[in-house]
Amino acid sequence: MVDKTRSWWGWGNTEDAISGTELDELISRVRGMLPQADLTPVPVPSITELGIGTSGLTAPTGLASLCSDDPADRAAHTHGKAFRDVVRNLAGDLDHVPDLVVRPTTEQEIIDVLDWCSRSNIAVIPYGGGSSVVGGIEPRLDGDYAGAVSLDLGELDQVMEIDRTSRAARIQAGVFGPALENRLRPHGLSLRHFPQSFEFSTLGGWLATRAGGHYATGYTRIDDMVESLRVITPSGTGQSRRLPSSGAGPSPDRLFLGSEGTLGIITEAWMRLQDRPRWRGSTSVHFTDYDTAVAATRAIAQSGLSPTNCRLLDAAEAFLNAGTAVSGGVLVLGFESADHPVQAWMERAVELCRDHGGELPAPPRYTDAPTPREGRTTADNWRSAFLRMPYQRDALAARSMIVETFETACTWDRFPALHAAVVEAANAALASTGASGVLTCRFTHLYPDGPAPYFGVYAAGRPGATLQQWDEIKAAVSEALHAHGGTITHHHAVGRDHRPWYDRQRPDPFAAALLATKTTLDPNGILNPGVLLPV
Amino acid sequence: MVDKTRSWWGWGNTEDAISGTELDELISRVRGMLPQADLTPVPVPSITELGIGTSGLTAPTGLASLCSDDPADRAAHTHGKAFRDVVRNLAGDLDHVPDLVVRPTTEQEIIDVLDWCSRSNIAVIPYGGGSSVVGGIEPRLDGDYAGAVSLDLGELDQVMEIDRTSRAARIQAGVFGPALENRLRPHGLSLRHFPQSFEFSTLGGWLATRAGGHYATGYTRIDDMVESLRVITPSGTGQSRRLPSSGAGPSPDRLFLGSEGTLGIITEAWMRLQDRPRWRGSTSVHFTDYDTAVAATRAIAQSGLSPTNCRLLDAAEAFLNAGTAVSGGVLVLGFESADHPVQAWMERAVELCRDHGGELPAPPRYTDAPTPREGRTTADNWRSAFLRMPYQRDALAARSMIVETFETACTWDRFPALHAAVVEAANAALASTGASGVLTCRFTHLYPDGPAPYFGVYAAGRPGATLQQWDEIKAAVSEALHAHGGTITHHHAVGRDHRPWYDRQRPDPFAAALLATKTTLDPNGILNPGVLLPV
Repeated sequence: MVDKTRSWWGWGNTEDAISGTELDELISRVRGMLPQADLTPVPVPSITELGIGTSGLTAPTGLASLCSDDPADRAAHTHGKAFRDVVRNLAGDLDHVPDLVVRPTTEQEIIDVLDWCSRSNIAVIPYGGGSSVVGGIEPRLDGDYAGAVSLDLGELDQVMEIDRTSRAARIQAGVFGPALENRLRPHGLSLRHFPQSFEFSTLGGWLATRAGGHYATGYTRIDDMVESLRVITPSGTGQSRRLPSSGAGPSPDRLFLGSEGTLGIITEAWMRLQDRPRWRGSTSVHFTDYDTAVAATRAIAQSGLSPTNCRLLDAAEAFLNAGTAVSGGVLVLGFESADHPVQAWMERAVELCRDHGGELPAPPRYTDAPTPREGRTTADNWRSAFLRMPYQRDALAARSMIVETFETACTWDRFPALHAAVVEAANAALASTGASGVLTCRFTHLYPDGPAPYFGVYAAGRPGATLQQWDEIKAAVSEALHAHGGTITHHHAVGRDHRPWYDRQRPDPFAAALLATKTTLDPNGILNPGVLLPV
Repeated sequence: MVDKTRSWWGWGNTEDAISGTELDELISRVRGMLPQADLTPVPVPSITELGIGTSGLTAPTGLASLCSDDPADRAAHTHGKAFRDVVRNLAGDLDHVPDLVVRPTTEQEIIDVLDWCSRSNIAVIPYGGGSSVVGGIEPRLDGDYAGAVSLDLGELDQVMEIDRTSRAARIQAGVFGPALENRLRPHGLSLRHFPQSFEFSTLGGWLATRAGGHYATGYTRIDDMVESLRVITPSGTGQSRRLPSSGAGPSPDRLFLGSEGTLGIITEAWMRLQDRPRWRGSTSVHFTDYDTAVAATRAIAQSGLSPTNCRLLDAAEAFLNAGTAVSGGVLVLGFESADHPVQAWMERAVELCRDHGGELPAPPRYTDAPTPREGRTTADNWRSAFLRMPYQRDALAARSMIVETFETACTWDRFPALHAAVVEAANAALASTGASGVLTCRFTHLYPDGPAPYFGVYAAGRPGATLQQWDEIKAAVSEALHAHGGTITHHHAVGRDHRPWYDRQRPDPFAAALLATKTTLDPNGILNPGVLLPV
C-alpha cells in the first residue's frame, strides 16, 4: 500500500478527496436538487497563509524529541472533522492552535508529559485520530493556561496479546481501525467495530467517546466490548481486572468510558473480539407509509432477532443516499454470523415487515463466504459509499453547501413527536438563515425501547456564512431534541460543542460526582479543559 | 393468598420452612452422603432471648410515625440472609442491631430522614428485601455514630407508569419481585429478572447491588435493563433522562448501579421490560469429561445463539441438585422467545454440544404456551427447587451443616487453573477446619469471553463452630479466586464481607474517584458506612 498524506483541513487522505468524474457527478446531482446553489469552490489555504505563530512552549529536554512545533502538524491538530471544522479551516480561521504536538512512545513518557504540564499549567488535549465532530480535540480554552499541547497517541498502536480462547486482545489505544483489523485477521478475529470514522479514528478515541459501531443492535457500542482499561491520570495509573463481567461495586471502566480525555489518558484495553462472520443475509424492505415502517422496525427491535443491520431510511434518505424513490422509506436488513446460516432469523424478520405492509422488491440474498472480497457484497458497496460520505461532505463544504449530521436516541413512544419537532425546527432554521435544502433521517442503532435517529442536513448556504447558518440550525434542532426527550448525543460525544445541552441533561448529583472526580484525578485541571465540564 | 410471616432469622416465610416429609427426606439424603454428621437441630431463639436493648435514638416528631423500635422488627433488620447470618441468628449473636426501622412512604420523607441523620450523625442502612449475603445491610460500623437506622423502602412499592410502546415502566424501588411481576402480567410484560432471591428482594436492592438475573446470556444483569434512575442523596436528588442509550459523557446511572446504598437512595427507575415468552425449548446434555463440557459451553457462549439457560453443572452439582450421575457434568440448555419458535436456535446449540461429545438422553422438548401453568414445565420444576434451596440451607444450617455458596467470573483462558485452585483451596480448608463435605460448581451466567462459575459447599461442621469454619473456608477460596484472575463477586455484591478482596481488585484512581464522590454526595458519611469504602 502506498503511503498517503493526511489532510490537515478535511477528512482522510488528500489523495482520496473527491475529484474528476466523481466530483462532476456529485456536483451535477446537487445542481439537480438545488439549482439555485452557488457552488463556487473555496480554495484550500496554504499552511503559511494561516499565520500560525511560534510555539509559546518549550518542552523539557527529556521530552523535546517527542514534540513537534511544525505549523502544518499543529494546524492538523487544531480542529476535529465536523462541518464547522472544515469550514473554519477553509476560511483560515484557526484561532486556537496547540503549541506543540507531542507523540509519546511509552507510558512513562505520558506520565512525564502529564507531570510537566501539571507543573507548568499547560492544557493537555488527548488526540487519537482527530475525528471529533464536537470540538473535542480543539484547544478552545476558557481558563488561564500557559499553553496547550496536543497529546497524539499514534505511536502506541500495537496489539500486545491475543487470547484466542476467550476471544480477547490487549490493544494499545493509538491504533487505527484498519491496522487493528489487519493484525486480528490472521487469528480469524475481529473487533467488528466499524464507526463511519473507522479508517481515521483509534481505539482510544472510541473508548474515550463511547463510540457506536456500525451494527444496529446488540453489543455495538464500544462500552460493551471492554474487558479492562488501563488509564494514566495525573494522580496515578490504574488498570481494571480483566473480566467478562463483575458485580463488585460500580464499574470502574464505565467512569472512564465517555470521559473524553478529561480524567485520564486511556493507554490500552483488553477488548472482546468476535470470530469473523461467514454467513450473511441481506435485503431491503419498502414501505408506503413512514409510521408503519417505524412500527415494523420497532417490532424487529423487540423481537430478540438482533439483526446486524436494521437501518430505516426515510424517503429523503433513501432517495439521496440509496437512489430509491419510496414514499414510506426503506428498511435495510442484514444478519451475519460466524456460527450458523442466518435464514431462520431473516425469514422471521421479513415476516414481521410483511405483517406491517412492507414489500421486498427482491428476495433476501444469502452468502456463505469466510473472507468476502472487498466490494463484492451489497453490504460492502454500501460500506464503501458510507466511508466516502465525509469526502463528499468536504467537497460540498468547499462549495458553500451546508452538509452536516446530528443524532440522538429516544424511547419509541416519544419518537413521532421528536421527529416532527426536529423536522419543524430544521425547516424553520433553514428558512430563517436563508438556506434551502432538505433534512433526512435514518436509524443507525436500534434498541428494544427506542431508536437512535440520525439526521442529515443538505442545504445550499450563503458563501462565507455557512458556519453561522449551521450553528443556528444546530442550536434549533438541539433544542427540539432536548425538549422531546432525546439525548443530545447518541454516539458523537459531548466535547465542547454539546455542552450547553449536556449540562442541562446531566443529573446534578452526577455532575457533582464528576467534578469531584476531576478535581481528585486531575487536580491542576490540565486535561482537556472545557470538555464535559467547565474546567 | 394467605398472608405469611417473614422469618426474622432465616430465609423467606416461616410457613414455608422445610418440615415434615420434606425435612425427613433432606436429612436422610444428607445422612447418606455424610454419615458422620451430627445433625442435632439448634432451636431458634425467641426474640426476648436475644436481649435487644432499648433504641438509643428518638426520631423527630415529624418522622416518629414512620419509625419502629420493636425488637422483633429490629432483629429482622440486623443481618442479611447469608449462611453466616443464619448461624449468628440461631446462636443469638446480634451484635449490631439497628436502633430504629424507618419506613418512609414518600420521597420527601426520605429527604427528611437523610437530613435528620446527617445533622445527628446517624448511620443510615438502606434496606430492600434484606437478602444481602455479604453483610450489606448490617449496621456493623467502624465509625463513631450516634446510632443506626435501617431505612426500609418497602412502602414505596408501586408501578407508577407503563409505556407499552417502548416496553418500559416506571417502578418504585421497594417493590418485591412477585408483586412487580403480578402488576406487569396484565400488560403482557415482564422484567424477566429472576434472581434466586426473587421472592424476597426488591427492585431497589437489585439495582444497588447490580444483581444478576436467572438467564444465562445476553441482557441478564439488572444494569442493562435500566433506562433511568432516580436517586436521593444527602446533597440533592437526581434523575437521569429516560433513554434507550446515550453517549453523552460517562453514564450517570452506572455510578449508582452497584453503589450499594453508599451514595444515595434509589427511589425509582424506568426499567426495560420484555414481552412474556411463549415459545420454549429445553434439553439436557450429558458429558463424560468436564473439560470437554466446558469447551462445549464456551462454543455456545461464543456462537451468538444467546440461550436463556446454559447451565453447566459439574458431576457433583448434577448428582446433588439434579439427581443425575454423569462423570463430566450436565449442560442444561434452554431457549425462550415471545416472538418466534426456538427450534433453529436449539438445534444449532445441540449440534455444538454433539461436536464436543455431548449426548442427549432425550430429544429437546418444545412448548408453545403463552401462560404456562405453575409447575408444569421442567424449567418450572427446576425453578421451584431453585427457590427452595435457601430454605434447605436454613434447615441444614440449624443442624451444624456448612451450606453456602460463592461465585465469580473469569475469562475462559483462566478458568481451568482457577477451578483447580478453588477445588484445592476448598478441600484444604475443609480439612484444616475439620469439616468434611463436597464442593460443587455450576455456571450461572455465560459471556463470550468467560463464564461465571458458582460454587457450593456442603459439609458437616462442628456444632457451635460452623461460623468460624465457614469464614476460614471463604477466606481460602477468595484468595484462590483473587490469585487466578476472578472477580471477588459476579453478582453477590461487595457489602462489608468482600471488602478485603474488593479493595485489592479496585484500581486506585477509581477508588479515589469513588471516595471523592462519596465525600461530595454524602459529606457526613451517613450512608451505609463500611460498605464498598472504609467510611
